[in-house]
Amino acid sequence: MQRQKLLINGVRLKNELERFANYGRTENNGVTRLSLSDEDRLVRDYFCACCEELGMSVKVDDMGCIYVTLEGVEDKSPIVLGSHLDTVKKGGRFDGVLGVVAGLEVVRTLVENNIKPQIPITIVNFTNEEGARFEPSMMASGVLSGKFEKAAMLRKTDSTGVTFEEALNSIGYAGEAENRLKEAAAFLELHIEQGPILERESLSIGVVECVVGMVCYEIEITGESDHAGTTPMDMRKDALFTANNLITEIRKRLGAIDHELVYTIGRVNVLPNIHTVIPNKVVFSLEARHKNPEIISLVEEIIQGLPQSSLNEGCEVKTTKLWGRDTVWFKEDICNLLEQSAESLGYSHKRMVSGAGHDAQFIASYIPSAMVFVPSINGKSHCEEELTTWEDCEKGVNILLDTVLTMLSR
Amino acid sequence: MQRQKLLINGVRLKNELERFANYGRTENNGVTRLSLSDEDRLVRDYFCACCEELGMSVKVDDMGCIYVTLEGVEDKSPIVLGSHLDTVKKGGRFDGVLGVVAGLEVVRTLVENNIKPQIPITIVNFTNEEGARFEPSMMASGVLSGKFEKAAMLRKTDSTGVTFEEALNSIGYAGEAENRLKEAAAFLELHIEQGPILERESLSIGVVECVVGMVCYEIEITGESDHAGTTPMDMRKDALFTANNLITEIRKRLGAIDHELVYTIGRVNVLPNIHTVIPNKVVFSLEARHKNPEIISLVEEIIQGLPQSSLNEGCEVKTTKLWGRDTVWFKEDICNLLEQSAESLGYSHKRMVSGAGHDAQFIASYIPSAMVFVPSINGKSHCEEELTTWEDCEKGVNILLDTVLTMLSR
Repeated sequence: MQRQKLLINGVRLKNELERFANYGRTENNGVTRLSLSDEDRLVRDYFCACCEELGMSVKVDDMGCIYVTLEGVEDKSPIVLGSHLDTVKKGGRFDGVLGVVAGLEVVRTLVENNIKPQIPITIVNFTNEEGARFEPSMMASGVLSGKFEKAAMLRKTDSTGVTFEEALNSIGYAGEAENRLKEAAAFLELHIEQGPILERESLSIGVVECVVGMVCYEIEITGESDHAGTTPMDMRKDALFTANNLITEIRKRLGAIDHELVYTIGRVNVLPNIHTVIPNKVVFSLEARHKNPEIISLVEEIIQGLPQSSLNEGCEVKTTKLWGRDTVWFKEDICNLLEQSAESLGYSHKRMVSGAGHDAQFIASYIPSAMVFVPSINGKSHCEEELTTWEDCEKGVNILLDTVLTMLSR
Repeated sequence: MQRQKLLINGVRLKNELERFANYGRTENNGVTRLSLSDEDRLVRDYFCACCEELGMSVKVDDMGCIYVTLEGVEDKSPIVLGSHLDTVKKGGRFDGVLGVVAGLEVVRTLVENNIKPQIPITIVNFTNEEGARFEPSMMASGVLSGKFEKAAMLRKTDSTGVTFEEALNSIGYAGEAENRLKEAAAFLELHIEQGPILERESLSIGVVECVVGMVCYEIEITGESDHAGTTPMDMRKDALFTANNLITEIRKRLGAIDHELVYTIGRVNVLPNIHTVIPNKVVFSLEARHKNPEIISLVEEIIQGLPQSSLNEGCEVKTTKLWGRDTVWFKEDICNLLEQSAESLGYSHKRMVSGAGHDAQFIASYIPSAMVFVPSINGKSHCEEELTTWEDCEKGVNILLDTVLTMLSR
């Protein structure tokens, strides 16, 4: 006989998400809750209070990350659930906060069912995932995993000159380095997809197998500025026309590689940018993401070949690699557990990749980690229209609960 | 027997051009002499003093234009020579000033040869041709010809908030409306080409038959901003990629029309212009110039067809005509005289068009006008590298002198 599945309380989850959204809610039902802002302080206070009511203990580390822990029968490394409570300016009600409130709902369900877990359950709120006020994004998880240097991060300033350290102290969430997340049985992060794939395929659950690797290049084209009225077409060195040739070529060649490859030219600056002057410089960014490093290498070969292209029309072309990151693979056996939970709960699901970065990709370097995605309506995030149905939120948290229970039962 | 040609003094012309360049000379041998600046005041004072030494009378109109006149035997409408003394920021030593100093050299040659002209000779300095400090360009000639409204021009401000009227008063060159250039036998403007054609063809003199007509459009593409990492390529509405398609199409179609057509995409703005975000908006300017209005109409048809293009990839495309101007044809019989002068002086020459705007194009609406071009090395102007050889400057002024003498002899 099949065990009766324990399920979370969907109404409570919805209400809690709406209560969290009150901290920084915007006119258009979005949220502005920049890292270490007053809104961030208030939502942290509220989160801690909720957890303390459940009998959980609260710790804060030196990057301001909050860890609330439900004691286990055995004092072993915990199962960790969580994400982040900060948002971008005019962001949404789901990005980040869903993963934290999910942890809270999982614990509430355990507590109200008088389930004392065999090992502790910790909910984490990572500080400054968005990087919207203090760059870079995923700042605290980057420090925890040794990717970023703490001292340098503390000195980062916002647009008004306030340092991260000052802001952290002023909201009263500067804790101890010894409280940092170290060992754990697992880290599970529930997050909205921030893309349109699940919705397009009418699926509720994405089991994320990796955060894809990426490269970001800058391509600089130098031509010659001449008078738009007096220079015959065949005597021009028009940096914009060369840029246009190269973009056409890039699209043609990258488009032929693999349908899962995504590439974006998001930033384009034209100089001197005057309608009567032929542009003498165009600088544009080109980033490309794919899980397979061989495909990324192929992309880099194509980009690096641009300066020798016959399409340059007398202009000089320079390519500079701004940065790259490797694909981060999540723990296969946790992915399997998540998939089995989705299956046993009867939720439509698929394996997928994350094109966006998340705290879990840094934490995965030292803790067995995995992520669950729920659909984003129209693929929108980082905007007030960001939306995930309450049903899908509920399903996502049920997957977490079920997987935690499976892990605890081992 | 052929009449012995009277020639100007090339050394004096060179020295005078260098003296004028001292008013605002930059470190790199260019000139910054913005309209109604201190440098402009000083060069005006110097110009007037030179003219008064020659026995010329000085008048100033209500837009600050200076008219210096050498009396004629008969008190009839004068032959007018001239151009402008203002420059752009970090401009050159030739643009504008050549036409004014040419007038001065013509009169000096007449005076030293004791030639009292049958009708008066006037040299004009038009205020604010460049529009570099106060927009629009060709401001004073625009007011004189009724294209611009004087009151509106007086209210124009520079980047520090100073109005044209205040600046004009502060340099002491606000004169009387009754002094404006009204009737004249002819207006001749010698100017540097500001393009590379004469140099490429190893010619010294361009007889300008028209200032070409032009249109300027703004093309706005609206797509959708999505996350660069999470949005599959086939689900994007990328405004930049659509712009790329349209620019390719524009180049293909305009490039096939006529080799004298010039078209420029000088201004391109991409939003939000963040490397990780798919652009949701691209706005670019497209201006095209040709002497033949039918070709300009063809260009407009092509631009206006862009919104219906199959290349738009789901984006919305809007085209807006910012402005247009018709081709201004110069007086055919004056062009013939200039050409005959070049021929009789043994200077290499051709008929050509002006792709750039000049005061003469406005003045031509009520005074028989024509222009002479001399070569610009590498086609450069509006920069410190602007250069015309002294020999070509001398030839240009000799053409003016010879043409004036021919006109006087009739």
